[in-house]
Amino acid sequence: MSLVAVGSMALDSIETPRGRHQDVWGGSATYFATSASFFTKVSLVAVVGDDFPVEIVDFLSGREVCLEGVERARGSTFRWSGRYGRDMGDPESLETNLGVFEHFKPVLPDSYRQARLVFLANIDPDLQREVLSQVTRPDLVACDTMNFWIEGKASALAKTLANVDLLIINEGEAKLLAEESNLLRAGHAVMRMGPKKVIVKRGENGVLLFDEEGLFSAPAYPLGDVVDPTGAGDTFAGGLMGYLASARRIDSRTLRQAMVVGGVMASFTVEGMSLDRLRGIGVEEIAERLKEYRSLTEFEAVPEPRARRLA
Amino acid sequence: MSLVAVGSMALDSIETPRGRHQDVWGGSATYFATSASFFTKVSLVAVVGDDFPVEIVDFLSGREVCLEGVERARGSTFRWSGRYGRDMGDPESLETNLGVFEHFKPVLPDSYRQARLVFLANIDPDLQREVLSQVTRPDLVACDTMNFWIEGKASALAKTLANVDLLIINEGEAKLLAEESNLLRAGHAVMRMGPKKVIVKRGENGVLLFDEEGLFSAPAYPLGDVVDPTGAGDTFAGGLMGYLASARRIDSRTLRQAMVVGGVMASFTVEGMSLDRLRGIGVEEIAERLKEYRSLTEFEAVPEPRARRLA
Repeated sequence: MSLVAVGSMALDSIETPRGRHQDVWGGSATYFATSASFFTKVSLVAVVGDDFPVEIVDFLSGREVCLEGVERARGSTFRWSGRYGRDMGDPESLETNLGVFEHFKPVLPDSYRQARLVFLANIDPDLQREVLSQVTRPDLVACDTMNFWIEGKASALAKTLANVDLLIINEGEAKLLAEESNLLRAGHAVMRMGPKKVIVKRGENGVLLFDEEGLFSAPAYPLGDVVDPTGAGDTFAGGLMGYLASARRIDSRTLRQAMVVGGVMASFTVEGMSLDRLRGIGVEEIAERLKEYRSLTEFEAVPEPRARRLA
Repeated sequence: MSLVAVGSMALDSIETPRGRHQDVWGGSATYFATSASFFTKVSLVAVVGDDFPVEIVDFLSGREVCLEGVERARGSTFRWSGRYGRDMGDPESLETNLGVFEHFKPVLPDSYRQARLVFLANIDPDLQREVLSQVTRPDLVACDTMNFWIEGKASALAKTLANVDLLIINEGEAKLLAEESNLLRAGHAVMRMGPKKVIVKRGENGVLLFDEEGLFSAPAYPLGDVVDPTGAGDTFAGGLMGYLASARRIDSRTLRQAMVVGGVMASFTVEGMSLDRLRGIGVEEIAERLKEYRSLTEFEAVPEPRARRLA
């Protein structure tokens, strides 16, 4: 199934307790496309400045990512810098320079308009809808969002949510969006805003799916060494959507598998700075980790307990 | 398999955002035994004061919990009071009155000494070893501990750990014990202290097993309404050990199932104040929730990904 994604292509500056890395590969679309490209062809919609490194373009093209919808504009590429603390939890955002992203108006090439699967990464909800208006009834529209839009553009976001099938959002954002501190109640409240399926990303605590079939909870692949969590969420979404595209099914059973794939892909991203680890792996490593994940989570059904005969 | 457990029988005073409850049923041994009693006969070692409510004794006896090893001493029963915040996370301890527990010297009745499974709840590590010295080579010794002993009686705890097979401990305590902030590395460090198996309790984030076969990660059963988390850890241990006793096996496959049972039992405890919910359930409700848990966590194996033919 054809897959189109819109998001940012960026240069990140990342500080962790181990050191600082300047202008490394980043952006939601970059992580998403790299991850999805192990499973399917992805077509990107994004904007880059005239300073955007040709190496990234070459790398993505080499992975058969279609960049026809990526506009090269005059000005600077989107830049973000953030700092992680010792716990490697949510980073502190130090600086955001929108650059050419400030006046981004996504225009989809004709070849994108019949996409069966669409992913709207975390960008302005008005732009997310702008993309949706240019595609012809896809089978599945998934989207992400963040605090900034939940707090600053609530009504635009509400319109977007009414038009997506699957919201992929992190735990804190789900609770903020639902104004509800209990995760289960938050997920159900978000479903009432439009998306029939909601995936809550919980970092090292795994992912939780709410859909028509009920709940699915998948723990995270445990890591002994967290190098850089940047892009883990977009890597997850890329693995998930890429897997659905390759499976050519979007039912609940396939979605559960896709979440497992997404989680495994994200575990590689977190093991390296920027995209360093993710772009170095091959399908053998993915297959190996999927096998490990299965053994990590597998248990035999517990026989039905019998009532004890009490005196 | 016969099961002996040592721990506290207590009266708790619990404050949550919904209200305050004075002198309700509590204590690690009480939660453990109630949970295990759905699966097997449990023999308790504990001490109570002359003010201990006969209703609790009657209830446990009615569930075929053997109280021969429970001493009734002159003085007050152990009392604990704690307060939960809005997030229902770790409670603030307000007061601990040891009462008769202060001079507790566990003495095992002869009928206990051949126990195949032993659980040492969170008490002074010297007392835990005192119990161990009175049993004849059990098949599995499991124990719990807490910050208070990790920080205050490190060398006594080290001796206990060298003599247990399975440590069941919460995440914060595991990291404190291992002096390691990464969960995976903390678990492996704890294994090097003695126990060949370590289970880390992570509350709403589930449980993680480290054993000879590798890792097993089980998410928590999600709850829309958390009433009182007190005793969830001991309920987990009780379900786990009770299930092992009834299955008559302690291999890794059975231990995984036992963790699922323990998690399901703990989910009932958390749904009510004190033991109110747990002691009201029947095996049908346990069976139903075990089924729900299976569907919550089940996914089909992901087919091995094929390398994409890139241009």
